[in-house]
Amino acid sequence: MKSYRLDPGSGLAGLTLQDRDEPEPGRGQVVVRIRANSIGFRDLMVLGGAYVLPVRPGVVPGCEGAGEVVAVGEDVTRVAPGDRVAATVFPRWLDGPFTRENAAQLGTTIDGVLTEYALLDEDGVVPIPEHLSFEEAAALPLAAVTAWNALTAGGAPRPGSTVLTLGSGAVSLFVLRFAKLGGARVIVTTSGAAKAERLRALGADEVINYRESPAWAEDVRALTGGRGVDRVIDATGPLTQSLKSVAPDGEVVFVGYSLSGAEGAKPVDPATLFMAGAVLRRVATGSRAHFLEMNRAVATHRLRPVIDRVFPFEQVPDAVAYCESGGGFGKVIISHA
Amino acid sequence: MKSYRLDPGSGLAGLTLQDRDEPEPGRGQVVVRIRANSIGFRDLMVLGGAYVLPVRPGVVPGCEGAGEVVAVGEDVTRVAPGDRVAATVFPRWLDGPFTRENAAQLGTTIDGVLTEYALLDEDGVVPIPEHLSFEEAAALPLAAVTAWNALTAGGAPRPGSTVLTLGSGAVSLFVLRFAKLGGARVIVTTSGAAKAERLRALGADEVINYRESPAWAEDVRALTGGRGVDRVIDATGPLTQSLKSVAPDGEVVFVGYSLSGAEGAKPVDPATLFMAGAVLRRVATGSRAHFLEMNRAVATHRLRPVIDRVFPFEQVPDAVAYCESGGGFGKVIISHA
Amino acid sequence: MKSYRLDPGSGLAGLTLQDRDEPEPGRGQVVVRIRANSIGFRDLMVLGGAYVLPVRPGVVPGCEGAGEVVAVGEDVTRVAPGDRVAATVFPRWLDGPFTRENAAQLGTTIDGVLTEYALLDEDGVVPIPEHLSFEEAAALPLAAVTAWNALTAGGAPRPGSTVLTLGSGAVSLFVLRFAKLGGARVIVTTSGAAKAERLRALGADEVINYRESPAWAEDVRALTGGRGVDRVIDATGPLTQSLKSVAPDGEVVFVGYSLSGAEGAKPVDPATLFMAGAVLRRVATGSRAHFLEMNRAVATHRLRPVIDRVFPFEQVPDAVAYCESGGGFGKVIISHA
Amino acid sequence: MKSYRLDPGSGLAGLTLQDRDEPEPGRGQVVVRIRANSIGFRDLMVLGGAYVLPVRPGVVPGCEGAGEVVAVGEDVTRVAPGDRVAATVFPRWLDGPFTRENAAQLGTTIDGVLTEYALLDEDGVVPIPEHLSFEEAAALPLAAVTAWNALTAGGAPRPGSTVLTLGSGAVSLFVLRFAKLGGARVIVTTSGAAKAERLRALGADEVINYRESPAWAEDVRALTGGRGVDRVIDATGPLTQSLKSVAPDGEVVFVGYSLSGAEGAKPVDPATLFMAGAVLRRVATGSRAHFLEMNRAVATHRLRPVIDRVFPFEQVPDAVAYCESGGGFGKVIISHA
Repeated sequence: MKSYRLDPGSGLAGLTLQDRDEPEPGRGQVVVRIRANSIGFRDLMVLGGAYVLPVRPGVVPGCEGAGEVVAVGEDVTRVAPGDRVAATVFPRWLDGPFTRENAAQLGTTIDGVLTEYALLDEDGVVPIPEHLSFEEAAALPLAAVTAWNALTAGGAPRPGSTVLTLGSGAVSLFVLRFAKLGGARVIVTTSGAAKAERLRALGADEVINYRESPAWAEDVRALTGGRGVDRVIDATGPLTQSLKSVAPDGEVVFVGYSLSGAEGAKPVDPATLFMAGAVLRRVATGSRAHFLEMNRAVATHRLRPVIDRVFPFEQVPDAVAYCESGGGFGKVIISHA
Repeated sequence: MKSYRLDPGSGLAGLTLQDRDEPEPGRGQVVVRIRANSIGFRDLMVLGGAYVLPVRPGVVPGCEGAGEVVAVGEDVTRVAPGDRVAATVFPRWLDGPFTRENAAQLGTTIDGVLTEYALLDEDGVVPIPEHLSFEEAAALPLAAVTAWNALTAGGAPRPGSTVLTLGSGAVSLFVLRFAKLGGARVIVTTSGAAKAERLRALGADEVINYRESPAWAEDVRALTGGRGVDRVIDATGPLTQSLKSVAPDGEVVFVGYSLSGAEGAKPVDPATLFMAGAVLRRVATGSRAHFLEMNRAVATHRLRPVIDRVFPFEQVPDAVAYCESGGGFGKVIISHA
Repeated sequence: MKSYRLDPGSGLAGLTLQDRDEPEPGRGQVVVRIRANSIGFRDLMVLGGAYVLPVRPGVVPGCEGAGEVVAVGEDVTRVAPGDRVAATVFPRWLDGPFTRENAAQLGTTIDGVLTEYALLDEDGVVPIPEHLSFEEAAALPLAAVTAWNALTAGGAPRPGSTVLTLGSGAVSLFVLRFAKLGGARVIVTTSGAAKAERLRALGADEVINYRESPAWAEDVRALTGGRGVDRVIDATGPLTQSLKSVAPDGEVVFVGYSLSGAEGAKPVDPATLFMAGAVLRRVATGSRAHFLEMNRAVATHRLRPVIDRVFPFEQVPDAVAYCESGGGFGKVIISHA
Repeated sequence: MKSYRLDPGSGLAGLTLQDRDEPEPGRGQVVVRIRANSIGFRDLMVLGGAYVLPVRPGVVPGCEGAGEVVAVGEDVTRVAPGDRVAATVFPRWLDGPFTRENAAQLGTTIDGVLTEYALLDEDGVVPIPEHLSFEEAAALPLAAVTAWNALTAGGAPRPGSTVLTLGSGAVSLFVLRFAKLGGARVIVTTSGAAKAERLRALGADEVINYRESPAWAEDVRALTGGRGVDRVIDATGPLTQSLKSVAPDGEVVFVGYSLSGAEGAKPVDPATLFMAGAVLRRVATGSRAHFLEMNRAVATHRLRPVIDRVFPFEQVPDAVAYCESGGGFGKVIISHA
């Protein structure tokens, strides 16, 4: 079978497709024939050597994948051959808060899913909602789970509450849609009219052009009668504007993003943190329990992820280059079909 | 001006319309010209002498009313003459949990709002959503606030979670609609096809006929793949069926109801409580903060309460008699127009 | 090696000591040389055929054990040979709420620890606090973890809050001591002067004799200025008295107990549930995360469990008979020394 | 009677003692004969014109005071003449989160308590624990309530958890003592051996000299096995060290402090916020409910505030000058005796 391998820090040159033996499941493990993957911003950081976790040389990259269980090891009870599943990014993070015990991560510290057959823990896969294709399901493990966790960690948003999400990146699009499912009024920042149009079509109640209004927190205040929003999900920065946008009893959720970018990296003044009054919560991906709970929302509402482009498995480098160039609107998918 | 007065325990004979002087606002108080009231099940209990709180002889009855501020006392800053407001049932319960300090209740321990002009604390009134008439606003203070508190006290229901609400009483109808705003899948129990039809029209995903299925917890289990629901809002009993319907990490919210009824009064076996695994939470009405938060949901989604019948102010006894006969579907309103 | 085996429902006659092969660890598993066990009330129910979970015929009984890791399987990273560990009662319940996925339980649905060598998941063992002997550590997995979960599930008790715990059973003794560590004022019910004395020596601020005061909720009210306690941990019943003892914004935690006893089995009137105003929370044991967190408290305060009697491994039936006769004060331990 | 008046922004020159008429209580109000006050860091900011809230020219300064109720207005039910009470800093913040509705603050936006007789809301005073003198009670409203809120807002610290508090300022001393009551292991930073000695005498388990270890987060990591602490209460900054000291599932509580100081004002890098993983919570003082709950802890454990020096009422300017010069260890008290 074919697997990508990664030598971190060499950019695209470090990404090669190699032959490997098909894996055999040990006790508690399953083999999944991967049918689709997704790639994105995190993969660029991993390839570029700028990721926050150490990357094992020669690791199979990729933390987002969906496929079919083809073999199960001893004592496996949660899945069976034929099941359609998606992998979880942190296979040992089952529930509760993230801890150092559960830090093993697909595609960096342990082998990931940019491969034809992946060897995974039975706890590290979850069933896919029936209405989704493998390509659609592959869009969920990183961006959608992060969005779900970000939106619910401090309690699900209440109907009639106001949620602000920044930009039209993959996490932000899921935040928008999950927040609308929860009855929130959603404000989104973006940079152009075309994206604004698409955001409105996905349910955005208000769209702010952050290029035209660099001090967009003032626009947010104006749209909320001066009170500010109940929840900001910040996946782009600058945090200062987020903190100026939030109500005193609200919450800014800080989702991992490129801290090398000019905006995102701007330091935060303690006085701004103090005057915001709100809680600042850091969120990174989510647990198996988050994924299962999110899937119930996705299934109940037959939600389909926005997909930007689909590349064949052999063209992962092209897909990465496409992401690097800025991409479009929605997730970039790899199909093994 | 005219006010109803109540001699508790005498039934309708204890309810009389009397002349009183118009009130003058003291420091921190407002006078509200009441434009609409709502009455219901609680009023029947108060009249019948079966209420859980002591009722002051000669009290002005009624805990649900909406109107216009016509005068404000010294130091009042939250409202001004001309403001459209609704009274809160517990005027001193502003936020946080219910405590003995805040137990003063309109229409029982202190004067209520079945009157032409009511003297209220400035903290004891909240602004009415703009899209609502006084009649619609009068439907909110008891049933809707109870439903909101019941649905959110243990955390807002998450999109894709499952909520079970019992019957088509006023609280249950609000639970149904608020839960749908929050993206939940909602199951309702009821007794007949006509009500089932109306519940479906309001958004119910599943309706169970509890007459045909007295052990309806089995139906609930069947509708949830055996798992049970995440949240039961029980405003009718029997609690035993609710406990058998809930998922192990779920919650049964027990809302005050007639404990003299055959079903509601059935005692609960500790083994059933234990096997349910869930939290059992008692909820009674809600605070000013609940009311304000709910109003944001009502305003954002332009939700309009279901109104059954409207009676003129002079015919409150007829309205009470109508309630006593079982009523219809939705709130019974008193209009001062 | 020697292991007990259990044929459920036959009482002591169903408990036999047999020869078995020493286990070999599979992937993710460890072999623990058990050095001490604890037995108690749950074991009596399992032997008597009255347990709430199905018991697999021929299962190795026992859910409380501590010992030394002697072998580890492939991919084991959390423990190493030589580590002193205790087994967790639900080896797959790692964190978060209890779910059906994690219901496998030592000694009933899967093999337990009344054996010389136990085969366990690496996730199903936790390190033992250094200051404890194996005998002391064996006292923790069931009663202490239950007490910790019961006391913290609704938020840790705040200094100056009041905790009521019922009786001097194993769970109650741990509740008393953990609540005192948290700065609570602790009230305990018991039946005699000797036990009262020992409870006071362990820190009880107030002791109520429930024989002399069958309506002991009145005593609790008197001791709390009429307000009631913030938290009741009820491991004996009757729930009705617990509900009458709790403050309106408090919580009654209902811990699994014999529901066949006359007191514990008394049904609960919904009116009592309603008037209590409080949350009623069911708790059964706890997760690996609970155990780890509790161990930090045990280690920080060098707390030592109260041990009643120690029996040698060969005399488990005698130990069971001793429990059946009512036992004493503290945990009954089995030593393999 | 005599009252201080304040012209903000003029430093000590703006603070004058003037004659005023004794107040009369309106509806819902009480008159308190103030017996003791406390002053501190906040007063310096108010006098210096550097406070975060606008200060009304001519306002009676002071937000910390205790005394005896001497008169009550109409409808007052919570207190009676003769009651020993302390004023709450935000008299309209009764419970729940801080909101703009409740922002009136003693001594800045409304008249405070550096006066012989203060006119206060009945909701704006709380009973004093019996074992405390007026001087001791006057030490509580600002620093102790802030410490309590900071320590409990994210859930009370659990026995065995680790709390880090910065410096030996008034808030930090209360954090230390409340955290010890809750069974936490407490680490404190300070600058000298004498203070370290006093902190240890108050219960500090570990003291770090931040002068010797400017990168003291490394010391904190070393003291916690690399894991970091569960809770940091940061009343001095720099936040960056706090964020590097906290466990990934922990919480940094950011308490208002001088943001003009070199250390406290250092901006925070988003990468540090991200890598911390923890929640960053802003806390400022607390509600009436916090004060009542804290008083139960103070009363139960007969805790006495650490008092540095006592000045007579006529020498408030001297007391302010003393604070300005750096003060000592504990609260600076004003006595009316």
